[in-house]
Amino acid sequence: MTNDQEFEHYLRVRRTEIETALEAGLPTPPACPALIADAMRYSLLAGGKRLRPILTLAAAESVNVRNDPGRDLTGSPSAMPAACAVELIHTYSLIHDDLPSMDDDDVRRGRPTAHVVYGDAVAILAGDALLTHAFEVLARPEAEETPPRLARRLRAIARLAGAAGAAGMVGGQVLDVEATGNLTIVGNGRAAPETGHEALREIHERKTGALIGAAAAIGAILAGADHPTVAAIDAYSTHLGLAFQIVDDILDVEGSVADLGKTTGKDAVAGKPTYPAVHGVARSRALATNAAAAARDALAEANLGGRLGEIADWVVSRRQ
Amino acid sequence: MTNDQEFEHYLRVRRTEIETALEAGLPTPPACPALIADAMRYSLLAGGKRLRPILTLAAAESVNVRNDPGRDLTGSPSAMPAACAVELIHTYSLIHDDLPSMDDDDVRRGRPTAHVVYGDAVAILAGDALLTHAFEVLARPEAEETPPRLARRLRAIARLAGAAGAAGMVGGQVLDVEATGNLTIVGNGRAAPETGHEALREIHERKTGALIGAAAAIGAILAGADHPTVAAIDAYSTHLGLAFQIVDDILDVEGSVADLGKTTGKDAVAGKPTYPAVHGVARSRALATNAAAAARDALAEANLGGRLGEIADWVVSRRQ
Repeated sequence: MTNDQEFEHYLRVRRTEIETALEAGLPTPPACPALIADAMRYSLLAGGKRLRPILTLAAAESVNVRNDPGRDLTGSPSAMPAACAVELIHTYSLIHDDLPSMDDDDVRRGRPTAHVVYGDAVAILAGDALLTHAFEVLARPEAEETPPRLARRLRAIARLAGAAGAAGMVGGQVLDVEATGNLTIVGNGRAAPETGHEALREIHERKTGALIGAAAAIGAILAGADHPTVAAIDAYSTHLGLAFQIVDDILDVEGSVADLGKTTGKDAVAGKPTYPAVHGVARSRALATNAAAAARDALAEANLGGRLGEIADWVVSRRQ
Repeated sequence: MTNDQEFEHYLRVRRTEIETALEAGLPTPPACPALIADAMRYSLLAGGKRLRPILTLAAAESVNVRNDPGRDLTGSPSAMPAACAVELIHTYSLIHDDLPSMDDDDVRRGRPTAHVVYGDAVAILAGDALLTHAFEVLARPEAEETPPRLARRLRAIARLAGAAGAAGMVGGQVLDVEATGNLTIVGNGRAAPETGHEALREIHERKTGALIGAAAAIGAILAGADHPTVAAIDAYSTHLGLAFQIVDDILDVEGSVADLGKTTGKDAVAGKPTYPAVHGVARSRALATNAAAAARDALAEANLGGRLGEIADWVVSRRQ
């Protein structure tokens, strides 16, 4: 296998492990009503890159391997509940963002969105249930209940909740809702250049960057990383989150070119501020590459190896 | 002071303490965007009975006093973050339940509901932020980080998440959404008698009972209650939750008589299954009184005193 094939194999194995754990952890009837169980499964098990939970596992692995180089690389089961919690929160955010009162998206990953299938009420409730379930998964009794492990789990819950809430992801979505409205009025589908640059960065840092950062950080925390190591992981994922978002924006433009035969995607139509709109595609691509390199540098400084560097390259080179 | 006045004083003191703690814990700009901070405050600090967080504090008090009779009754600060978490979750559930796609309520506690003031998108996000914040509050670092305390906090998080999620409150709201639709078609605004009885009980146990139960249980857990004591608190709050819901249903009918001069309230208009619709008002009142007595019996068996018994009486006698 080439390095690329080997990394693709790693991603597939991790996705399968994560999806198995997600499915096994979901509430089922008669513990809960059938309709909410269906709606949660529908969105959670619809596929996807699983970038965030893979980051959690990879960060835990990276810390474990540095601390104990002889350690078997094939699993970091102690971080799996945290990986699941991150994906549960990501999925809930997609369901709520897709609602008619927000982005009004009818299709995600090639399937009708939750509110199209179940109606707005049940879609909102499925999101609520997934978000709540994330914290249940993280707090469930474990076989190993040592004091350091208990303290790490609480620290992980606090970090994840902080990243997902008003100061992080939810706050970013609020800014996005505000900005889309404003920019539609002001700029006719294009960000106003004087305010676009900083506002755009804040929206992305909160809406996407905070959860990506927490995903990696809680993996490291649960593996027992000390504060300087968590700080290095935070630096890594700040750059990674930026790279991810820039590429997301570029794919929205270029995906539209390929699929729809026009030069603007749904972000531009919706008047969303994006990197290509503010910087142009070529400059955006350079910014993404620089961000991934900065992410790798942060790892190198903390002597962290493993998959995290490959993940940074993947985030920039991905086609979807 | 009479006993009633003394109890009213207790409730006022507790409400003030809880509201002070809720407000102090909220995220504020620049940590989060101003709009989401405003929307969270608007619904959270709109008043209300604060029954659930008072239950949390009272349950902790009750366990503390039984275990250490000389203990000062004036505060159970170690349960305050849990009390706040319970009220945060209750408030988020009200915001989401009031949305146009759910119960479509425009007024709550005499003020326009969140979606009327902020729009559906920001109302949904404010609910999401309050729910997320609940778990952050429970997981935040504390001065006392002893292993038993860490373990209790994780147990409290798991219990609260279980009660709030698909198997509890969210599941109950899903059943309510389903039942309201079904019953509107089947019974023209009145529950079908053959299926109404059991279905009604399940809806209420999940939608209202689960969070009331968790509110009391996590107070006891954080005070270090053993399993039989938590089981007694659970029995107490199962009966209390039933009494609470029956009275809620009665007040919806009788409040309408007084305020609107008609014999059916909004539940009946919406085709919601209610106790008065299934059992009639007189029988419903008797059921509520019996439930409160059963709640008191559960306390007596576990030798638990304090405010919990008075709270059971308050729930039945309340006029709002």
